[in-house]
Formats: sequence, structure tokens, C-alpha cells
Amino acid sequence: MRKNEYFSFRFDNDRLIFLDQTKLPTEQIYIETESYERIALAIERLEIRGAPAIGITAAYGLALAVKNSNKENLVHDFENAFTRLSRTRPTAVNLFFSLEEMKKIFQDNIQSSQIYEVLKTKAISLHNEDISKCERIAKNGLALFTNKSNVLTHCNTGRLATSGDGTAFNIIKHAFDRGLVSHVYVDETRPLYQGLRLTTFELMENCIPFSVNTDSMAAFLMKERKVDLVLVGADRIALNGDTANKIGTYNLAVLCYHHEIPFYVAAPTTTIDRTITSGMEIPIEHRQKSELFAYTEINFNQDIIDVFNPAFDITPAHLITGIVTEEQVYRFPYNFIR
Amino acid sequence: MRKNEYFSFRFDNDRLIFLDQTKLPTEQIYIETESYERIALAIERLEIRGAPAIGITAAYGLALAVKNSNKENLVHDFENAFTRLSRTRPTAVNLFFSLEEMKKIFQDNIQSSQIYEVLKTKAISLHNEDISKCERIAKNGLALFTNKSNVLTHCNTGRLATSGDGTAFNIIKHAFDRGLVSHVYVDETRPLYQGLRLTTFELMENCIPFSVNTDSMAAFLMKERKVDLVLVGADRIALNGDTANKIGTYNLAVLCYHHEIPFYVAAPTTTIDRTITSGMEIPIEHRQKSELFAYTEINFNQDIIDVFNPAFDITPAHLITGIVTEEQVYRFPYNFIR
Repeated sequence: MRKNEYFSFRFDNDRLIFLDQTKLPTEQIYIETESYERIALAIERLEIRGAPAIGITAAYGLALAVKNSNKENLVHDFENAFTRLSRTRPTAVNLFFSLEEMKKIFQDNIQSSQIYEVLKTKAISLHNEDISKCERIAKNGLALFTNKSNVLTHCNTGRLATSGDGTAFNIIKHAFDRGLVSHVYVDETRPLYQGLRLTTFELMENCIPFSVNTDSMAAFLMKERKVDLVLVGADRIALNGDTANKIGTYNLAVLCYHHEIPFYVAAPTTTIDRTITSGMEIPIEHRQKSELFAYTEINFNQDIIDVFNPAFDITPAHLITGIVTEEQVYRFPYNFIR
Repeated sequence: MRKNEYFSFRFDNDRLIFLDQTKLPTEQIYIETESYERIALAIERLEIRGAPAIGITAAYGLALAVKNSNKENLVHDFENAFTRLSRTRPTAVNLFFSLEEMKKIFQDNIQSSQIYEVLKTKAISLHNEDISKCERIAKNGLALFTNKSNVLTHCNTGRLATSGDGTAFNIIKHAFDRGLVSHVYVDETRPLYQGLRLTTFELMENCIPFSVNTDSMAAFLMKERKVDLVLVGADRIALNGDTANKIGTYNLAVLCYHHEIPFYVAAPTTTIDRTITSGMEIPIEHRQKSELFAYTEINFNQDIIDVFNPAFDITPAHLITGIVTEEQVYRFPYNFIR
């Protein structure tokens, strides 16, 4: 594979083609499907992950759900798919935003004989908007850099997580291209190692210098003044700026506060949930305990070990120095408009 | 194996028998040796680990080094072993304390025809003192508990890490026996999973209820007020109370400070380095990058990935609520006597 040739998903010939991210970096396996059920499974299994990517692939799933439907079953088929896709993952709000956008189009065009084409066109439009937002986020994010800096990031926020070149990752990429990033510290991001498996993969593809550290080493790096800023993505942002993101993000925000290091979130505005006023209202997904052992060789009788495995945590707005969207860089205090 | 029948090491019939901790919990393999070189290797490979356990097994190593020596080679053999064992691991000070104690005895008895017996007796005496200190630490540590509490701990500080029943772990064990502990949260402790592999093993052996979390989840637990106190061990304590311990400890201390949760260290006084005034003087061991992948199934071209892997970090004294030794519970500010 040549540099930058990988992609997280594409819609071609009425099929979704996606990279199975659970196999990275060991294997690059692309899966093709025209089944919304397969897309729902892919989202549940984290073969497709990242709040923006989940939203767009679910939109394609809704279009595919009516492709072979008939007039009699159309509403039933759409609603089944809508419900199925809604139930895949509870925290990232981009999913629900996309599904609702698709539903509006469905309801407005329910009599159309071209309903599949109409839904497909809408999904493609959401897809293109997400690509464009990634570029505008990166452009706005350049304002975070005054000098050549060392950045620490958590989880994966690159091309694998979005339709375009990413959120926080794309800022790092653009800043690196302009000589504003010297080194990226990558939190390995337990339990599923999205940093170690995915972000390192994307950094290598972009020839950006980096090193990996366990999540517990970030504090040491900050104390040694090796980190100039922290930049992460988001799965849901409340109107007051409270942000849900991959477990471990809140830990980093507390560490930044203690060490007086700026802590930034980058996300498209589709990640802002306009219906909730604070992070208290964000549902946190708790995932199965087997994930703690998913990439390990430790043989356990897992039945006798109790595990605490929230997939996300909430960072209160006052710990967030700024939120970069495709619109602008917002600064604390945040008052997003309902 | 019946409850509580495991041991980390024993000295029987002029041989050291130790449990290979790198294989736990998958396999319980005991290794017998009369070679100080094998003991040095075991310490380097972390087959034997934990500051107190390293100190005592190294003492036995020094005794074994002269067992088959003769008058001509005695000093040479002792000094070779002393140097070899000194170079195994740089951070835990108990190692150097034990080696120096043994050296004094060696020098005082260099003319004795019973030099091996003299050194063995000293090593046994250090061993018994360590067992006794574990009990006194546990007794003193009960004062940390006013109500039935949820404790979070990091790494492993139990029987596997010491000669007796542990430091921080033994406090938890004694407190649990008195109804003062309801639940133990176990940091998995990346990169080598001492929490997930070893502490869970010891908690199960003692029938203490627990759950495992990734290191990055501790912040979430604290924010949800699920943790009443944090209790960890130590590898070296400076006169001002600055403490080196397993990487991730400093992170926990910052989190405790932010969430106003008490943060305690437990260690025998042999862990206090009377020659240094602050943590700035503690050498931090950086270990090979392969450790980040040691228990994982992720296939990487490790050569192209740069890794940051300090084995320890330093927690400044002002973040430590108290230090429990066999003497008493010390409270901040610490002024240990030179």
C-alpha cells in the first residue's frame, strides 16, 4: 500500500466497503456489504469506529435498507433499520444526528419511486460534508500552535475515525506540514489500543515522528515538560461544553489542569448535542469485560474476574481550554446554541 | 493449590526457590537455583520483582556466591556477585540496602572458615525482618481506615513483592479481615499488568472482592466517588518523602489531589534512601520497548515504533497524604532522618 492510500470506508457500486479496524495494524482487511445489519454489526464490533465515521456509515446503512424494499414494506423496512442502527452504540451523538437527517429525507420522499436514490444522495451529501468539516477543523486548529510543539493525543481521530482526514489528528497533520509539530506522544489507549494500533498506523502513513506511551505515562511526560498541548476528539459535547470521549480523556484533562498545559477538543458541530445542557445527560456505554483481554495473551478464567469497562468518560467544560469545530475555535466558557 | 499456599521465594537446602512471576496467572512455575547469576537474571527479567523481594533474594544470591569459593578467590567471587547483583535494577533502594548489609558482614568475617554460613544467616535474618515489617506495616496501616472503604491500588504489593504478606496489599488484607474494606479497585498496571496478573491472583487467594480497571479509568472512578482512598507501595523514598514507585503512581497521586481523596504509600523503612534529600536524585529505570508488547497479540514491526517506557515515576511528597512504615504512619511534611 502506498502512502495515504488506506481508507476507513467508501460507498461504491451501491455497496459499503470498510476497513476492519479491529485487525489493524496486523492485517488490512476490507469488507464489502450491502446489508444494514452487517453495518450495524460492524459498528457494534468496532470494525467501524469513531463518532463521525459511525454517523456516515449508518446513513449509508439506512439507504441500503430500502434498496430492495417494496411499497408495502418500505416504512417497516426503514424503521427496522433505523431502530437497529440506533441501538448499536449509545454515546456518540453523530450517529443519531445522521439517522435523524436521513429520517427527515425519508419522510419527505416516502412516495418517491426513487426513494433509495434519494436516501443514497443524502448519505453521500452527509459524507461530503464530513470530509469538508475535517478540512475546516484542521484549518481552524492551526491557531492553537504558536511555536513548534510536542502534542499528546489519545485514541484515534484520523482518517480511520472520520470520512475525511480526521479531527484532532487532521489538526496535527496540517500543523506538522507547516513545521508546527515536532513530536507526537501517542497514548496507547487501553483497553482496545486505538492509539497503539490505529494512530501509530496513521502517523506512519503520514511520516510524522511519534512515540507510544502507556496511558499511565502521560503524567510523567507532563511533569518533565515534554508535552506542550493535548489534543483529542469527542463523541458527544453538551451545550455547556462538557465532553464525552474515549475513556482516559478525563484523566488527561485533569493532568493538563494540574500541569497548566492546554487541553483541546476537536470535533465537527455534528458532535454537539443541542438537546442536552450538560454532560450529566450523556449516556456512557459500558462494554463487555472480554475487551480488557481482547489483545492480550494472558490466560484468565474471565468468569471469576470482575471488570469495570466504561468506553467513555465525561470531561467537564472548565477543564477544556478550547473546542475546535469547522466553525471556529470556541473557548471556555462554552454556550453552544440550542 | 490451597488458599494462601503460594510463595514468592524460599531458601531451602541451600537453594533459592522462587515463583516465576512473569508466567502468572497462567502458570505457577517454581524455579530452584544455587546460582547468584540466575538470581540476577530473575531480577532483571522480573521473574522476581517488588522492592523488598528483590532486596532479600539478592542477599541470598550474595551468600550463594561464596558457597563453593575458596580462600584465594573469596574476595573476587564476592565482589563479582556484588557488582552483578547491583546492576540488575537501579531504582528500588532495598536492593542496595541489602547488598550493603551483606557486604558489612562479609568484611567483618572475611577470615571465617564458615563465611557462607555467616552470610546465609544474615540473609535469613534480613528475610525474617522483612516478614516482620510486613506485619507491622499492616498493623499501623489500619489507622488509615475510619469506615468501611473502597480502596484503589496500583501494581502489586503483596506476598509476591515481599518476604511476608506485603506492604500496601497487607494493609488491605488486614483491613478487609476487620470489615474495613468493601471493594478493591485494581489498576491493571501497564505495561506489564502486575495489577491484572498478580494483584488479582493474590486478592482471589484471600477471597477479597475486587474489580480490575485500566489505569486510565481511575479518574472516572474517582469522579464518581467510588474510591475512598488509594494505597500503593514504593521502590525508593527520599528524605523529604518524594517517592519512586511503579509508573502510573504519580498519575494517581495527581488524580487524588484533584478529587480530594487520600493517597497513601506503604513501605518498610528499608525503602527510605537516607542518602538523598529529594526525588530529583532517584534514578529512573527505562526498560526495553518490547515490554509494551510483552503480553499482547498485536503484531508490530517493533523496529519502526518508538516507545517511551520508564518503569517508575516520582510522586512529590506534597501529594502524599501519609507514608506507612513498620515504625508508624508518617504524615506530610516528611523529614526522615539521615
